Amino acid sequence: MFRFMSQDPSQTIARLVETLGSDSVISDEAGMANYLNEPRKRFHQKSPAIAVPKDVAAVQALARLANAEGIPLIPQGGNTGLVGAQVPLFGNEVIVSLARLDRIRDINAAAGHMTAEAGAILENVHKAAEAEGGMFPLWIASQGSARIGGLLSSNAGGVNVLAYGNARELCLGVEAVLADGRLFEGLSSLKKDNTGYDLKDLLVGAEGTLGIITAATLKLYPLPQAYETAIVSLESPEKALELFYAMRDRAGSRLNAFEIVPWLGLDFQLRHGMLDRDPTADKSPWYALIEVAQPKGAEGHLLQGGLEAAFEQTLITNAVVAESEAERTRMWAFREQMSECQSREGASIKHDVSVPIAAIPQLIRDGSQAVKRLVEGVRPMPFGHMGDGNIHFNFSQPVGADPKAFMAGADPIHDAIYETVLALGGSVSAEHGIGQLKTGLLRKVKDPVALEMMRAIKLALDPNGILNPGKVLD
Amino acid sequence: MFRFMSQDPSQTIARLVETLGSDSVISDEAGMANYLNEPRKRFHQKSPAIAVPKDVAAVQALARLANAEGIPLIPQGGNTGLVGAQVPLFGNEVIVSLARLDRIRDINAAAGHMTAEAGAILENVHKAAEAEGGMFPLWIASQGSARIGGLLSSNAGGVNVLAYGNARELCLGVEAVLADGRLFEGLSSLKKDNTGYDLKDLLVGAEGTLGIITAATLKLYPLPQAYETAIVSLESPEKALELFYAMRDRAGSRLNAFEIVPWLGLDFQLRHGMLDRDPTADKSPWYALIEVAQPKGAEGHLLQGGLEAAFEQTLITNAVVAESEAERTRMWAFREQMSECQSREGASIKHDVSVPIAAIPQLIRDGSQAVKRLVEGVRPMPFGHMGDGNIHFNFSQPVGADPKAFMAGADPIHDAIYETVLALGGSVSAEHGIGQLKTGLLRKVKDPVALEMMRAIKLALDPNGILNPGKVLD
Repeated sequence: MFRFMSQDPSQTIARLVETLGSDSVISDEAGMANYLNEPRKRFHQKSPAIAVPKDVAAVQALARLANAEGIPLIPQGGNTGLVGAQVPLFGNEVIVSLARLDRIRDINAAAGHMTAEAGAILENVHKAAEAEGGMFPLWIASQGSARIGGLLSSNAGGVNVLAYGNARELCLGVEAVLADGRLFEGLSSLKKDNTGYDLKDLLVGAEGTLGIITAATLKLYPLPQAYETAIVSLESPEKALELFYAMRDRAGSRLNAFEIVPWLGLDFQLRHGMLDRDPTADKSPWYALIEVAQPKGAEGHLLQGGLEAAFEQTLITNAVVAESEAERTRMWAFREQMSECQSREGASIKHDVSVPIAAIPQLIRDGSQAVKRLVEGVRPMPFGHMGDGNIHFNFSQPVGADPKAFMAGADPIHDAIYETVLALGGSVSAEHGIGQLKTGLLRKVKDPVALEMMRAIKLALDPNGILNPGKVLD
Repeated sequence: MFRFMSQDPSQTIARLVETLGSDSVISDEAGMANYLNEPRKRFHQKSPAIAVPKDVAAVQALARLANAEGIPLIPQGGNTGLVGAQVPLFGNEVIVSLARLDRIRDINAAAGHMTAEAGAILENVHKAAEAEGGMFPLWIASQGSARIGGLLSSNAGGVNVLAYGNARELCLGVEAVLADGRLFEGLSSLKKDNTGYDLKDLLVGAEGTLGIITAATLKLYPLPQAYETAIVSLESPEKALELFYAMRDRAGSRLNAFEIVPWLGLDFQLRHGMLDRDPTADKSPWYALIEVAQPKGAEGHLLQGGLEAAFEQTLITNAVVAESEAERTRMWAFREQMSECQSREGASIKHDVSVPIAAIPQLIRDGSQAVKRLVEGVRPMPFGHMGDGNIHFNFSQPVGADPKAFMAGADPIHDAIYETVLALGGSVSAEHGIGQLKTGLLRKVKDPVALEMMRAIKLALDPNGILNPGKVLD
């Protein structure tokens, strides 16, 4: 593989301009800033230039050039990733923004599919689907800027994975430019196609290391006629687990969301003036936000009866059911502001982890205890997608502590949480991926045979190591 | 790759016995017959021996031996595959039956997962899930003999794909022995795990060419409290498509099945005495079997209202709703006997194809016309999983024709159907796979870049070509 390039940046820029035209290459510092500055403010490597190809043929031409001359490429969507997959690691990589490939190529909501280009912004995909009476059920906090190519490359999750799956499950086929410029024509609206290896799922979640996704066929679902949404008060994660089992058994695939938040999350948001009104029934150690979808042909209230049963079985101590769209919006805001409220409260150390769902209470108990032993006064803030076994296991700094000093002690906290997660058979990256942040961690914790298989596949599909070098596999 | 082996069969048998013990090797003709005779009665190649390893370690030892000495291996489950993936092509391959690895390793129905070994029979997996109050929603005609490893290797479909997906979507993780005996430890009950490439989905559907699946973590779903099942009378596939759209919009993910059968299917079954009573409302050109699941917490009848609306919109001309489990069973028998009734009526030429669902009426119209032009009196029998865009597009011989002469004319009929399918953006193998039956066809119709990627991956993971040579990729 190429690792050290002989080309100086001005040579690289000249070759890019020759290949793509000057209107498709950004190399001034101000213009490049939007592509290089990433949301974690953690990765600060430079890049010779940003390529902004105007169509698929231009992406192919770029890959041919890069593969022939050893120019590393980083595919980038909305630059919202949290693990640095979309920004440089070595400083000689050219970022390939797919932003100009943003068309909806076709849509058939009744049949349940649409084809969107990699640069289509998630929110626009939502709107296009809804305009046809359908729904693309992938919702994440950054949907106003995240783009389809990046969402698929990172196999994004979000708040409706419980009912509809991750980005992977929402994708029927992809079109992608390979490292040497060949075009993999894998767009497909077929639900069943057993003609060879599953190349779509290899490209989805590969964080741009195996190909540059240029378009995708996405699944659309019918819009429900209504949602039933509630926030319940609970004593413990154990009760939340029992309640989840009961609600899942009762609602089946109509159970859309089951999210948990500890009391501290409400406290932060109320103290920082982030909620116009408390959306919960009362002060409680734990809350769960539960949402059930009602298909158009269904009658009756499924959630209400479930909550009454849960109350009788002492799984919950109280509940509020949203009685208007405004109340539902407030409940979801409470959940979605969980990241922001921790920023306002000071420094926090974060982990995006998953465990088998039955192990969630133990994860929260063991992880909180382990970190409390390390840092006196640390405030555990485990919250998130309980129904998927996926907890954002964050820790806010002790009250009054120095944020920098707290962050300097992050490594032993990471170690303690990842050790707890692995002991429970969990994953150290549930939905955010590996990028450049977790390559060392992956090497330590992943099945070594899986790593060997991944390396063999990478070498087979990108023998010169052109695509996003040093990401996922270091 | 090894293609021609120097070992004679007796040498191979001796090495297998040394490695596995004599109780794990079958080499007498009578004992081998069950493994070599396949359901299509189409592939008749011999094999030096059948290996029946007793555990995962024995599978690994076998792969190490095979890889070192150039002995090709064919993983086999229940030997129910329809494309010859599980039986020899060259005659020097050793069949590796996973039948003895048939344990359920663990199960947690409330949490929604179980781990079953590759040799577990589907029907036993169903029973194990139901005993814990859960459901493994993969139903196929051969479920009494099909085994989990084969079901995953062929990415089996069945009658509930509409609501729950193919075998791929029902699998959370796999354990597999690679060509050189390494063990990929990919079992996982995690719903979210973004730590590297999706190796599970590469092994699922690879028909045993990339690894030998030894166990899998399967998804379990809550048992519905009831099903609403109906057979409706319809004028045409166009009406069936409109009805499907309406039912999908109305029922969302509660729509479990939407299968179509032409009148001829009922006629065959009644004439051959395969139904104790006609399950349909009246004589009609087309029937659709529709099933909606009712989760435990739901009220009311979703299907009934949908059918009333459909009648008003003239999408259907009549309907019978099952009012007892016996009636539901009869309706499903009508659907499931579709293959058998064609055998009783004489020779038939079969195609397992899919198209984008909106193209189903055109597929049926164009395909029937094309074949009628080729064979006077041919009887088209397109039926199956309309909701998935997957039609078993079969043709029964003309009344009174010679079955052998009819079958001798199969090639132009195949060509006509596959041409129609490809013109509509469809797949020449929707659920049965490629095996040895369709490798030449795949080479002709598949995206050439996809084929190159598949070959590169095969070479990367099985450089000596030990695993199921000549299958999928020829």
